[in-house]
Amino acid sequence: MEQNESLQRLIESFKSLPGVGYKTAQRYAYFVLEQPMDEIQEFSSNMLRAKQNIHFCKVCGGFTDTEICQICQNRDNTLICVVKSAKDIDVMEKIKDFCGVYHVLGGTISPLDNKGPNDLRIKELVERVAKQKVKEVVIATNPDVEGDVTAHYIAKLLKPLDVKVTRLAQGISMGTEIEYADEVTLTKAFESRGEI
Amino acid sequence: MEQNESLQRLIESFKSLPGVGYKTAQRYAYFVLEQPMDEIQEFSSNMLRAKQNIHFCKVCGGFTDTEICQICQNRDNTLICVVKSAKDIDVMEKIKDFCGVYHVLGGTISPLDNKGPNDLRIKELVERVAKQKVKEVVIATNPDVEGDVTAHYIAKLLKPLDVKVTRLAQGISMGTEIEYADEVTLTKAFESRGEI
Repeated sequence: MEQNESLQRLIESFKSLPGVGYKTAQRYAYFVLEQPMDEIQEFSSNMLRAKQNIHFCKVCGGFTDTEICQICQNRDNTLICVVKSAKDIDVMEKIKDFCGVYHVLGGTISPLDNKGPNDLRIKELVERVAKQKVKEVVIATNPDVEGDVTAHYIAKLLKPLDVKVTRLAQGISMGTEIEYADEVTLTKAFESRGEI
Repeated sequence: MEQNESLQRLIESFKSLPGVGYKTAQRYAYFVLEQPMDEIQEFSSNMLRAKQNIHFCKVCGGFTDTEICQICQNRDNTLICVVKSAKDIDVMEKIKDFCGVYHVLGGTISPLDNKGPNDLRIKELVERVAKQKVKEVVIATNPDVEGDVTAHYIAKLLKPLDVKVTRLAQGISMGTEIEYADEVTLTKAFESRGEI
């Protein structure tokens, strides 16, 4: 069958979503065809509205629909948590006790992807720490090579500013059995062992 | 964080897609926020355009952007393949040799879901067979209880019209090992065994 063009285009659009292949995109497209027109109009306008209203917070780089986000406006700015991307803020917000603010880097140092420190919002972080009376910067980059390099790079830059720089602990995840933990995780957990 | 409303709404829209939970919807929404505006505009208009242009073919009930679909216009209408839903046409089109046309039922007989024969396009099928010189009707409903009931119901209705009514063969799938085939499949395969 010569599949008609508008359907093909819709499938291509859905295929651009992360982790969506042709089959899933096709499934989504057929679902759209089967929905009432007004729901699809709403879907489509929700997409445009979100894109129009939401931009990056001038201070932390997170998503917001105001000039400065609610977190930067209302919370303790002497404690800054550094994350890789804006969506990581939502992840960190699962820690109900965290009362500080965020700083989005926009990536990690990764020579293979041609990303150096100047491509990230590291300069902005240093300026922020220098200007405000920041007590602690918690680095929450991923526990991989790029995350490690980025964390150490930032720590080195912040040292002269007399601020405490910490990083999320690495160890065995809750609920994991030690039997199945990998070597690197076990080694890290052993190195960072705490007294009980 | 008080997540802003436009983002929440977009996540809800994505969550309405089949098989998409909150986490995946969130991932899609963040992806949208990170894309350039023109791509999202295109995505959104592709959705509306597909919905506006595509409707059901007057003859077979499949998706089309013309009044009568390309398949009904150009192919052998003495061979009709009966499918459950419009998207099954794409699936059946994988059989490169099939040169006939389709008939979409819009479901299967299923008393539990309050779907009787009158809710399906069975009357249209009978009319089609009575009007045209149809040689064969191949029923391609799923090999489950509803599919079986629907297939037998249709076969019974079509019998007086002097048309050959067949159904997709049931047996062991290619690549499966007999060791792992279930009882029902094995029994069906044994019953329909063919001479070699």
